[in-house]
Amino acid sequence: MSGFSFQIRATDGRARAGLIRTPRGEIRTPAFMPVGTAATVKAMLPESVAETGADIILGNTYHLMLRPTAERIARLGGLHRFMNWPGPILTDSGGFQVMSLAALRKLSEEGVRFKSHIDGSEHFLSPERSMEVQRLLGSDIVMAFDECPALPADAAEIARSMRLSMRWAARSKAAFDGSGGAALFGIQQGGLSREFRAESSEKLREIGFDGYAVGGLAVGEGQEAMFATLDFAAGMLPADRPRYLMGVGKPADIVGAVERGIDMFDCVLPTRSGRTGQAFTRRGVLNIKNARHADDSRPLDEACSCPACRGYSRAYLHHVFKAREIIQSMLLTWHNLQYYQDLMADIRAAIAGGRFAAFARDFRARQEAGDDGGL
Amino acid sequence: MSGFSFQIRATDGRARAGLIRTPRGEIRTPAFMPVGTAATVKAMLPESVAETGADIILGNTYHLMLRPTAERIARLGGLHRFMNWPGPILTDSGGFQVMSLAALRKLSEEGVRFKSHIDGSEHFLSPERSMEVQRLLGSDIVMAFDECPALPADAAEIARSMRLSMRWAARSKAAFDGSGGAALFGIQQGGLSREFRAESSEKLREIGFDGYAVGGLAVGEGQEAMFATLDFAAGMLPADRPRYLMGVGKPADIVGAVERGIDMFDCVLPTRSGRTGQAFTRRGVLNIKNARHADDSRPLDEACSCPACRGYSRAYLHHVFKAREIIQSMLLTWHNLQYYQDLMADIRAAIAGGRFAAFARDFRARQEAGDDGGL
Repeated sequence: MSGFSFQIRATDGRARAGLIRTPRGEIRTPAFMPVGTAATVKAMLPESVAETGADIILGNTYHLMLRPTAERIARLGGLHRFMNWPGPILTDSGGFQVMSLAALRKLSEEGVRFKSHIDGSEHFLSPERSMEVQRLLGSDIVMAFDECPALPADAAEIARSMRLSMRWAARSKAAFDGSGGAALFGIQQGGLSREFRAESSEKLREIGFDGYAVGGLAVGEGQEAMFATLDFAAGMLPADRPRYLMGVGKPADIVGAVERGIDMFDCVLPTRSGRTGQAFTRRGVLNIKNARHADDSRPLDEACSCPACRGYSRAYLHHVFKAREIIQSMLLTWHNLQYYQDLMADIRAAIAGGRFAAFARDFRARQEAGDDGGL
Repeated sequence: MSGFSFQIRATDGRARAGLIRTPRGEIRTPAFMPVGTAATVKAMLPESVAETGADIILGNTYHLMLRPTAERIARLGGLHRFMNWPGPILTDSGGFQVMSLAALRKLSEEGVRFKSHIDGSEHFLSPERSMEVQRLLGSDIVMAFDECPALPADAAEIARSMRLSMRWAARSKAAFDGSGGAALFGIQQGGLSREFRAESSEKLREIGFDGYAVGGLAVGEGQEAMFATLDFAAGMLPADRPRYLMGVGKPADIVGAVERGIDMFDCVLPTRSGRTGQAFTRRGVLNIKNARHADDSRPLDEACSCPACRGYSRAYLHHVFKAREIIQSMLLTWHNLQYYQDLMADIRAAIAGGRFAAFARDFRARQEAGDDGGL
């Protein structure tokens, strides 16, 4: 575990602001990690991602092991060199994507056999293979291999799945090779159940990890249920380690989760929304395809410093959306990532200043004042 | 015609190196103009286009008049502000695209009535309307409205079309408003015929333009016929004005045309090829989709300074091509535009140094040594 550390520098209620140190650089928390699924944060050059203020990005084990393969990336010097991102990278375990994307899955105690959604080739993922793939990629923060049950699921299924994931967590820890300075995070499961979340947390603490994720949320349960679960689930994880809420989320989800003690986030929302013409602004979400932007000379967001807002009108962005030009995806993705990083910077400053409750209240009021509809 | 000037600073054989001055900036010649059809050089931010060394870009009157419309662009402050390109812009007249893209064209002495290829709406282009559209866009170099006959065409049709274009050239000159400092270029037509090219040039000289284009080439006649035509056609145009070969071309086309006295070029080849995985290198064209690049840790071109070559292996570019990631188009387009601008810089230096013949010989030898096939 050498080379990885987490320091809490300020707390405000349950919210925490801190610093993760890794051999490849520091991560200011609360942190948002842009998603670089297939060795690219879609429509962005990596230096542009860094310019937005991102300290760390996420890579997807499932996608990369299928194409171009982890072995090929290792031969080429690892994922950082391959995709030209010198900073920290967190890789997921492949467990979630194998359940949501792969065909013909066959689950056993040993692991998951599945067919690639790309070419139908057969593959196997297990805690040991996931650790190997993430090591070959050169990941800085490795996620334990877990199972994500398909929803809806009854209590017995949630418990069965959680207990399997905890046995896999122990096997992940045993197979993990941290000699290069990588950290290993465990993943709490247990659905919306306080009892199962407590059991999962107990198991993870026994095994011992560098950080802890809350898994199995943001899978359709809605914000209210997610927050209700976080109200008890986050505090079950060790206070002195980073807490990572996987796959979250909308700006309001992030603010609410930080209020409940979460330190790290990842989500495809800012990048994916950018490609479909949705822009996050300080007044809510704006749909650039809306015809009312066609003659609007204003930028997306007057308060934003990104290239899309510095150089272009809404009218231009509307035009290039209609014309299906690549620059539309480039500019709106950049803007959305800038919005997310600005939000995280504001959150960190509010926590450090002891005014996070007021910040969260103002944030929600501004979002509601938006006149462009929601997502 | 105030604000526009052309100075020849060096000649070497028939090749010329010079400087065009416009109110929006200088253009080093021989110059290559990246094509920004719909108010964007596809897959590039305009500051990146400038970084490659481009002094001027081209905008397409036909596309912009249909969407978002010239009137809208004018309301928003003109094309430069709209697309965030502060440097010079040359706009074509719309004549070529209306013939190649529009549906249900009806040609008369007055102009061309046609239906939009986007939404079927009816439009009319004439010398007067083309001048108006280019003025609304805020073009720095305005092209006279001409007709491009569909090929193959017999001599009578080539002559008829050329003479119509010359009458339209006179009407373009009469309708042109250069009060904002814009320049007007005439377009020589006449197919592959020395006689018709001479007649066209005579008419254009009588009318008088700031610069002269060679039109009606690079339309399928082949490099040999194009060079044979340029051998007599370029010299028919005034020596003290810029000569612009429209829609050209491959690197070898450009080198050969500079040898024959051409100063300006535009072509979609570097941008379009970038999006389909073809990269121009100092050793010829490379197809990044070729499986032999999958494990190749070398850059596209060791001698290139672009971000694609500084930061990425051929293996990475192959991967993102296979994964259909937007960054593939971004990186290969940047590389190809850098290649073209580096080529133009090398051409200018060779002319200035009085060694252009040797440069052209070496260039052709290097291209033939390439091992990755041609376009």
